Amino acid sequence: MSKLLIVGTVAFDEIETPFGKTDKILGGAGTFIGLSASQFEVSSAIVSVVGEDLPQEYLDLLKSKNIDISGIEIVKGGKTFYWKGKYHNDLNSRDTLVTELNTLADFNPIVPENFKNAEVVMLGNLHPSIQMDVINQMTERPKLIILDTMNFWMDNALDELLAVIKKVDVITINDEEARQLTNEYSLIKAAKAIHKMGPKYVVIKKGEHGALLFNNGNIFFAPALPLEEVFDPTGAGDTFAGGFSGYLAATEDTSFENLKKAVIHGSNLASFCVERFGTERMENLKRDEVSKRLHQFKALTQFDIEIE
Amino acid sequence: MSKLLIVGTVAFDEIETPFGKTDKILGGAGTFIGLSASQFEVSSAIVSVVGEDLPQEYLDLLKSKNIDISGIEIVKGGKTFYWKGKYHNDLNSRDTLVTELNTLADFNPIVPENFKNAEVVMLGNLHPSIQMDVINQMTERPKLIILDTMNFWMDNALDELLAVIKKVDVITINDEEARQLTNEYSLIKAAKAIHKMGPKYVVIKKGEHGALLFNNGNIFFAPALPLEEVFDPTGAGDTFAGGFSGYLAATEDTSFENLKKAVIHGSNLASFCVERFGTERMENLKRDEVSKRLHQFKALTQFDIEIE
Repeated sequence: MSKLLIVGTVAFDEIETPFGKTDKILGGAGTFIGLSASQFEVSSAIVSVVGEDLPQEYLDLLKSKNIDISGIEIVKGGKTFYWKGKYHNDLNSRDTLVTELNTLADFNPIVPENFKNAEVVMLGNLHPSIQMDVINQMTERPKLIILDTMNFWMDNALDELLAVIKKVDVITINDEEARQLTNEYSLIKAAKAIHKMGPKYVVIKKGEHGALLFNNGNIFFAPALPLEEVFDPTGAGDTFAGGFSGYLAATEDTSFENLKKAVIHGSNLASFCVERFGTERMENLKRDEVSKRLHQFKALTQFDIEIE
Repeated sequence: MSKLLIVGTVAFDEIETPFGKTDKILGGAGTFIGLSASQFEVSSAIVSVVGEDLPQEYLDLLKSKNIDISGIEIVKGGKTFYWKGKYHNDLNSRDTLVTELNTLADFNPIVPENFKNAEVVMLGNLHPSIQMDVINQMTERPKLIILDTMNFWMDNALDELLAVIKKVDVITINDEEARQLTNEYSLIKAAKAIHKMGPKYVVIKKGEHGALLFNNGNIFFAPALPLEEVFDPTGAGDTFAGGFSGYLAATEDTSFENLKKAVIHGSNLASFCVERFGTERMENLKRDEVSKRLHQFKALTQFDIEIE
C-alpha cells in the first residue's frame, strides 16, 4: 500500500454558524486531511503536535481510521492549538474570535522513520518553515509533494513560503490568495505566474464556486456540488486536500488525467464535510454514500455534444 | 427552418471599463440575443423599438445575419434607448451613469404575422407587461417560451412579473435575483420555489462562476470558460440567452438532455462576447472559432471516473 504523509494541525475548534454553535470539538487541517484520505486504500500518517488536554478519544478516532499517529507529539503539560470562529449569514466569510497557538508555537515536526519514504506528502496549512522541515526529512524524493497554504503566510513569512513553493509539485490555494501571491487578477495569469515559482500543478479553490486545476496550459474545472444546506464550512478545504492527496497516493499516477480525477474526489468529499459541524459527517462516512455522490457529480457536469 | 422570436431592446450603449471606453455603440438585449442565435440554423426575428437616430448600418448588420427586422419599429422623430455605464476594476459590478428610455417608454410590441407561430420565443429583459403582450399575440402555443428578467422588475412590477413567469417554460435569472425572488439563499431551494411559480426549467446564471440548470430535481452545471482577460461583460447574459434559445430553436428538442447542451452552447458563445467592447466580437464570429472553443469546454469539464 502506498504511503501518504500528512503534516497539519490537530486542534480544538469552537464554531458558531447561523445554524448553531459548538463547544470545543476536534478540528485542525491534519485531522480533516487524514479523515478524508482514509476513504482510499492508503497507509497514512499525521505529523502534528498537541497538548495533554486533547481527549484520548480524538486520537483513538484517527487510529480507528488506520492513520498512523506516532508522529503526533503530545507535549507534557502543554495545551492544544485552539481556534474559535463565527461565520456570517452567507457562510462565505467568518470572523476569527480566538486563536491560541499553544504547543503549535514551538512545533518541531518529526517524520516517523517508516514514512520518510512516503510516495505522497501532503503539507497542510502551517508555517512554511515547518513545511520545509518536513520535506528535508524525507530520505527519498516523494513522487508528489502537495502544498496547501494561506494568505497569513504571504503576509508574514513570504520568503520562506516562496522557498517551499519552489520545492513542491502541486499547490492548492484559494482564488483571492492566488491573486495576492501573484498580483494578477485573472486566475489564468495567476496560475501561469505560480507555475513559474515551481509547481507543475496549480489548484485554485473557489469555495462554493468549485476548483480549477492548471497544468501548463491545460485547465480542468470541478464545481462544488450544489447543496440544499451548507451547515458548517470549517474543514472543507482540508477535506478537499485529503481526498485529492489520498486518491493520488492510492493510484500513484501523477498524470494530468489522474489529477483531474483527484480534483473530483476532493470536491466530492468536501461536499460531505460541510453538512455537519466539524468532523461529524466525515467520521462515519460510508463508501456507498461516496459512490452515490460521485454519480451525482457525473450527472451534474457530463454532457454529450457532437462538435463539427 | 424553425422560427425563433426574440423580444428585446436594440439600443445605444456607452461603456467604460478598466481597459478603455466607447462612444455610443450598438447594444441592447435583442441585439445580443439575435447575434448569438444567428450562429444556429434558425429563422429569427427581433421585436423592438428604436428612434430615427439609430444608424441604418446597425439595422443592416442585423439583416446581414438573416434576422428579420420587420418587427423593429422605428419611431419618427424618436430617440433610441440609451444606457451608459462604468464597470469597476473587477468587472463584476458596475454603475449605471445614464438611462434614457426614450422610445422604449411607450413600446407596444408588434409580432410580425409570420412569427406568430414561432416554435421558440425568447423574451429578453423588458417590462413584464411587454413580455406578456408578446405571448398573447402568438396564434399557437410555442414549443418553448424562455424568459429573461432582472431585479429591477421585481422591485417595480412584481405582480406583472409573476404573471408572466407563470406562463413560461424556462426562466433565466442570475443568482442574486433568484434569491431576491424567492427569499431563499440556497440556490437549490430557490430553484424549487421558482418551479412552483411555473417554469419547468430554471437557469440560474452566476456570471464568471457559470450557470446551473434545474429541472424537477435534476441539476446540470456549466462553468464559464476561464479567460485570460475579460474586456467588457456587457451583453454576456443576453449572448448566453441567444445561444441557449438559438440552439433550442434549431433542434426543437425540449428534453433535459438537450437543454444541457443549450446551456453549454450559451456559455460558449458568451465567452466570446466579453472579449471585445459591445457587439464587436459577435459580429464577425466564425463557426470554426465556435467549434474550437466547444472542444475547450469539453476538455475543461469532462472526466472519466469509474465508480464502484
